[in-house]
Amino acid sequence: MEGGVDYLADERKKAEFDVQQMKIVWAGSHHTFEISDRISKLVANDPAFSKDERTMLPRKELFKNTLRKASYAWKRINDLHLSEEEASQLRFYVDEPAFTDLHWGMFIPAIKGQGTDEQQKKWLPLAYKMQIIGCYAQTELGHGSNVQGLETTATFDPQTDEFVIHSPTLTSSKWWPGGLGKVSTHGVVYARLITDGQEHGIHGFIVQLRRLEDHRPLPGIIIGDIGMKFGNGAYNTMDNGVLRFDHVRIPRDQMLMRVSQVTRDGKVVQSDVPRQLVYGTMVYVRQTIVQDASCALSRAVCIATRYSAVRRQFGSHNGGPETQVIDYKTQQSRLFPLLASAYAFRFVGEWLKWLYTDVTQRLQANDFSTLPEAHACTAGLKSLTTSVTADGIEECRKLCGGHGYLCTSGLPELFAVYVPACTYEGDNIVLMLQVARILMKTVSQLGSGKLPVGTMAYMGRIEHLLQYRCNVQKAEDWLNPAIVLEAFEARAARMSVSCAKKLSKFANPEEGFAELSADLVEAVVAHCQLIVVSKFIEKLQQDIPGKGVKQQLKVLCGVYYLFLLHKHQGDFLATSCVTPKQASLANDQLRVLYSQVRPNAIALVDAFNYTDHFLGSILGRYDGNVYPKLYEAAWKDPLNDSVVPDGYHQYIRPLLKQQRSAKL
Amino acid sequence: MEGGVDYLADERKKAEFDVQQMKIVWAGSHHTFEISDRISKLVANDPAFSKDERTMLPRKELFKNTLRKASYAWKRINDLHLSEEEASQLRFYVDEPAFTDLHWGMFIPAIKGQGTDEQQKKWLPLAYKMQIIGCYAQTELGHGSNVQGLETTATFDPQTDEFVIHSPTLTSSKWWPGGLGKVSTHGVVYARLITDGQEHGIHGFIVQLRRLEDHRPLPGIIIGDIGMKFGNGAYNTMDNGVLRFDHVRIPRDQMLMRVSQVTRDGKVVQSDVPRQLVYGTMVYVRQTIVQDASCALSRAVCIATRYSAVRRQFGSHNGGPETQVIDYKTQQSRLFPLLASAYAFRFVGEWLKWLYTDVTQRLQANDFSTLPEAHACTAGLKSLTTSVTADGIEECRKLCGGHGYLCTSGLPELFAVYVPACTYEGDNIVLMLQVARILMKTVSQLGSGKLPVGTMAYMGRIEHLLQYRCNVQKAEDWLNPAIVLEAFEARAARMSVSCAKKLSKFANPEEGFAELSADLVEAVVAHCQLIVVSKFIEKLQQDIPGKGVKQQLKVLCGVYYLFLLHKHQGDFLATSCVTPKQASLANDQLRVLYSQVRPNAIALVDAFNYTDHFLGSILGRYDGNVYPKLYEAAWKDPLNDSVVPDGYHQYIRPLLKQQRSAKL
Repeated sequence: MEGGVDYLADERKKAEFDVQQMKIVWAGSHHTFEISDRISKLVANDPAFSKDERTMLPRKELFKNTLRKASYAWKRINDLHLSEEEASQLRFYVDEPAFTDLHWGMFIPAIKGQGTDEQQKKWLPLAYKMQIIGCYAQTELGHGSNVQGLETTATFDPQTDEFVIHSPTLTSSKWWPGGLGKVSTHGVVYARLITDGQEHGIHGFIVQLRRLEDHRPLPGIIIGDIGMKFGNGAYNTMDNGVLRFDHVRIPRDQMLMRVSQVTRDGKVVQSDVPRQLVYGTMVYVRQTIVQDASCALSRAVCIATRYSAVRRQFGSHNGGPETQVIDYKTQQSRLFPLLASAYAFRFVGEWLKWLYTDVTQRLQANDFSTLPEAHACTAGLKSLTTSVTADGIEECRKLCGGHGYLCTSGLPELFAVYVPACTYEGDNIVLMLQVARILMKTVSQLGSGKLPVGTMAYMGRIEHLLQYRCNVQKAEDWLNPAIVLEAFEARAARMSVSCAKKLSKFANPEEGFAELSADLVEAVVAHCQLIVVSKFIEKLQQDIPGKGVKQQLKVLCGVYYLFLLHKHQGDFLATSCVTPKQASLANDQLRVLYSQVRPNAIALVDAFNYTDHFLGSILGRYDGNVYPKLYEAAWKDPLNDSVVPDGYHQYIRPLLKQQRSAKL
Repeated sequence: MEGGVDYLADERKKAEFDVQQMKIVWAGSHHTFEISDRISKLVANDPAFSKDERTMLPRKELFKNTLRKASYAWKRINDLHLSEEEASQLRFYVDEPAFTDLHWGMFIPAIKGQGTDEQQKKWLPLAYKMQIIGCYAQTELGHGSNVQGLETTATFDPQTDEFVIHSPTLTSSKWWPGGLGKVSTHGVVYARLITDGQEHGIHGFIVQLRRLEDHRPLPGIIIGDIGMKFGNGAYNTMDNGVLRFDHVRIPRDQMLMRVSQVTRDGKVVQSDVPRQLVYGTMVYVRQTIVQDASCALSRAVCIATRYSAVRRQFGSHNGGPETQVIDYKTQQSRLFPLLASAYAFRFVGEWLKWLYTDVTQRLQANDFSTLPEAHACTAGLKSLTTSVTADGIEECRKLCGGHGYLCTSGLPELFAVYVPACTYEGDNIVLMLQVARILMKTVSQLGSGKLPVGTMAYMGRIEHLLQYRCNVQKAEDWLNPAIVLEAFEARAARMSVSCAKKLSKFANPEEGFAELSADLVEAVVAHCQLIVVSKFIEKLQQDIPGKGVKQQLKVLCGVYYLFLLHKHQGDFLATSCVTPKQASLANDQLRVLYSQVRPNAIALVDAFNYTDHFLGSILGRYDGNVYPKLYEAAWKDPLNDSVVPDGYHQYIRPLLKQQRSAKL
C-alpha cells in the first residue's frame, strides 16, 4: 500500500469475522496458506515478474517477454532450491500462460501415465532438468473433441523397427498444442497406429520435433504458431502451434507402451496394466480445472467487490456523497451469488482432491467400482464450474461499469485467458452428455437392486424422492440444510427420471438420446448443482475455528443454494418439488442473506489473500486508490508518446484543411 | 468465392424458401437492400478497407491505420458523391470504430438537438465539411451513469461575457469520450452551470480543444488517450480520451442554448422549447442501438451456423464422415434460438423506427402523452437486446469449439467491440429500473380510469389477465399466436402486479423499490420480451411475398417465443400462467421447430447478405472453405516471421544446455 492510505479501511472494520482464519479455510490448510502467501509475495515483489505492460505489447515482444519470465522463473526455482510444491506455486503466481505449463502439466504426466518404467527412466530425467522441452500434440485442425477421429498415422515399419509418423491430409495437421509453435523440442504425439495394414486405434508417441543444436525443425516436420487468440496479452503469450509430418521416422521404443505394446514383429499386445488408469488421469486433470475455476472466479469477484465499494453513483442527498454501488440490491443480487459460488467451488474442489486420492488407491487395489461415478462427477463439475466462472468473470466486468472495459481493470484479460477452460479437456456440452449417459444408466438399474454409489447415492432413495413434498412454511425454514438438500435431491432425481421415461418411448435409444439431449443436459446441471450444494453443507458440518468464520460460510452457503433455487425455479416448480409460495419465500430469505453479506463483503474477498500483482487490476487494488492510479496508467499507452498523433499530417490535417465541398 | 468451390452448396439446396425475398425482408425494403448490397460490396472489394491485419497490429499502427481508413472513406464519399444514407452505410461497412462515429453520431446531433438556430447555422456547416472534428464529452473519471453527478464547472464571468470551464478535481476529468484522445478539435462538453454563485444544473458547451494550425491542445487543456481496451483490434482503433480543464474561457454564445439560455447579465432563462425534446433524442439513439444489436447478433449467428455445417465431430459409422455438428440437438438448442432472436430484434428495431417517427410528430404537435411509454419501451428494449446480443456472441463463439478462440474466427473481436453496448447510453440495469418505475406507476394508476397506451396497453385488461388460464392441450396449440400472446401478457402483468403488491407493504416506497429492485428487473424483462414477441407476431400478420418466406418466419417466431417460455418457465409456473404439463408440451413443440429450421439454417443466415469482408471470419466464409484458409492465415502471424523465435538464444537455449542440477 503506497503511502499507507487505505480507502477501504472503513469497509474492513465492518467485518464480523476473523479474516486471518478465513484465509486458512480458503487456502485449505496452514501449510498451503504459508506457501502460497510466501511465494505469491516473492513473485509480487520481484520487478522481473511485472505484468504492467503486457496488454500493450505486440505479439513478438509479448512472447519474448514470456520466454524471459519462464527462464528467470526456472533460475529462481533452482537458486532458491524450491520444493516441487513451491515451484508449482511460483509458476502459478507468475500468472502468464507459457510453454512450461504444458511441459510440466501435460508432457511429463503423459510419460508418467502412459510410459513403461524403462521409458520413464529414459525421458523423465531429461524433462525434469528441462534438457528437453515437451508438448502434448493431440488435437488436429479438423478434430478436437473426438479423439477417435484423429487422422495422423503412425505406421510400423518392421524392416527398420521404426514408426513412420505422417499427416495424410491438411485437416490432420496438429493444431492448438501449447508450447508447440516455437519452443518444444519434443512432443507426445497422438496418432492412429497401423501395423501390417491393420488399424489399432489412437496411441501416444514421443517424437523429437526440433534439433537440440540450433532449434530448427527436424526434416519432414513443418511447425509454426497458429496466430492471435482472444484478448490482449492473455493466451497470446503461448505459442499454440501447428505441426505437419511428412513420413517422419522414430524408433519403435518411442511409442508409449504402458498399456499396449507393439512387438519387434509388429504385433499389438495388451499389457496387464488396466486401461482404466487413463480415467484416473482424467479425474486428476479435471479436478485441477475445478480448483482453477474457484481461483479465476474469486479473482474477478475480488476486483468487482472492491470497486463496488469504491464506486459511487446516484443517491446523493443534499450534495453529500453518492451511494456506494455495493449498497444497491441489483448489484448485490448479481455480485454476492458469484462470491458465494467462488467459495462453493473452492470447497467442492477440495473434496475432488480427496476423491482423486480415493480413486487412485482403489485403482491400485484393482477396484474399479467407483470409477464411472467418479468420472461422471469430475466431468460434470468441470463443465458446471467452468461455465459459471466464464460467465461470472464477464458479469463482474459489467458490474464495474465502463471502467471494467479498460485493460487496466484486469477483467478483460482474465476473461480472455479463462474462457478456453469451457472447451479444452472436454467441451462442456460433450462432457455433460457423458454424465447424462451414466445418470440414465443409473436410473435404469434402480430396479435391479444395484445401489448407486458416491454422488449418485441419493438416487437409491428414489421412491422417497418421488413422493417428497417440501414442508417450508416460512422464509427462515430455507436456512435448514436438511430441507434444502432434500429439495435439490428431489429436483435432480425427478428430472433424471422424467428424462428416462421420455427416453423409454423411443424405439431406438440412441435416437432418443440425441433428440432429448438438451433436456438431458438440464438434468445433469441439476445433478451437479446438488453435488456442489451438498459438499458446501458437508463442509459446514466440520469444525471450523475462528470467530464468526463458520457463520459467514453459512450465510454464503445459503446465498449459493437460494440463488440457484431462484434461478432454476422453473425446474423446482415443474417437478413440483416446491410450491410457488415456497419459491417466493426462498427469494425473500435470499434478500435477507444479501444484507448479511454486505458488511463482510470486502473482508470475504480479502480472505482470498491475493496480491495486487496477482490481481493485476487497478479497480481491485487492495487500498481502493482507484482513480488516481487509473489516471496515471492512461499516460503509459503508446498513443500518448506524442501529443499530436502519428498520422496527423497525413490523415487528419488534410481533412481539416480541405477545400473540397462535400455533397452532405 | 475463390476457385468457385462452394462447400455449402448442398446446404443451400435444402432451403425451402426464396432467399432473395428474405434478403429484402431482412433489409426492410427494396431500397435499403439495394443500397446496403451495393455499398457493402464497394467496401469489400476495395483493398484499402481490408481488415486482415487488424488484430495483430500494435496500438499506434492500428490507430494510424484507422486514421488512414477514415480519411480514405471521406475521400470516397466525396468522389462518388454519395448521399447521406449511402455515406452512413459506407462508414458502417468499413466496420472499424473511429472518431467519425462520434463526430457524425453524437457531436452533430447534439448541436442539432440542443443548439439554437443561430448556433446551428454557425457550427453545422463547419462540422459537415469536417473543417472541425467534434466529440461528445459527458462522462467523467468518477461519474458515468449519473449525469447529475458531473463535477466539471462552467462558471459565467459577466465581466468578460465568458464561461470559465474548469475541472475542479481529478475525478472530474472527462474520461471515455471517443475521438477525444487524439483527433477532435472541438467537443460538446457537459458541465455544471454556475452564474452569480448559483448552480443551474448540467448543460452542454461547445469548447475548442486543439489549435487548428498544429493540432496542439489549447492552453489550460490536458488531453490524452485512456489506454488499451478489451480485445484485439476492436475498440482500440478509437481514441477514447481523458480531458482536464484549467480555467478555460469560452464565449457565452458557445453554451448550447436551445432549451435554457444565459443572458448577458448572467440570468438563466428557459426558452419555450419543451425540455421533453431531449427524450426524443434518447428514443432515437436507443432505437439505433436495437438495430445494431440485431446486426451484431446476426453476424455471430451467421458465422456459427455456417461453421456448424462445415464442422464434423463424432458419429462416424463404418469409417464414413463424422456428423455435421449442426445436426446435434444440443447445438440446435443453443444456436437456433439466437438465429430466431436476430430476426426478432430486426423486426422490433424496424418497429422502433416507426415509433421514433411517431413520437417526433407528436412532439412537434406538443403532444407529450406517449413519451413516457415510448421512453420506457426504448430503454427496456435497449437493455434486453444488448444483453442478449453480448451473451449470444460469446455463445456463438463457444459453439465454434476451439477455433472460435482464434482471432481469425472474427468472434473475439465482434464480442469485444460489442459488449460496451451493455454499458453506454444507459447501463442496462439502470435503464431497467427506469422502466420499472414507469411500470409500477402504470399499475398504480389502473384503478384511476387512466388507460395505459402503446406497449403497456395490455395492462388495461388486467382483470382478465389475472384470471386467465392457458388452454393449451396439445403441443401444436403452442403454434397459435393468440394463445402465446396472452400467456406472455399474463406473465408480464402478474409479475408487475406482484411487485406492486410487495411494494405497497413498505412504509417508504423508495426503500421498497430499492429492496425489491432485483424482482422489478425480472418483471421488466418479462414486459420487454412480451414487446418483442408481439412485434414479431404483428410482422407475420403483414403481407410477406416470396415462396416460403412467411412460413420460415413463422417457424422462427415459434422458436423465439417457445425458447423464452422454456428458459423462463419459472416465471410462467410461479404466476400460474401455464401448468407444468403445458410447459412440457411447449418444449416438445420447440424440438419439432428445431427440425424445421435445420434444412433452412444456412439459407436463413445467407439472407443477412453479409460479405466475407464484413463478417471478417474464416469460420463464417460463404464458401465454407474453412480449414485451408485457417492454415494459410496462421503463417501471417508475426511470430512466424522466423522459424527460430526471437529470444531463443537468450532464453531457451540456456535452459536446454544448462548443467545446473535442479532439485526437482
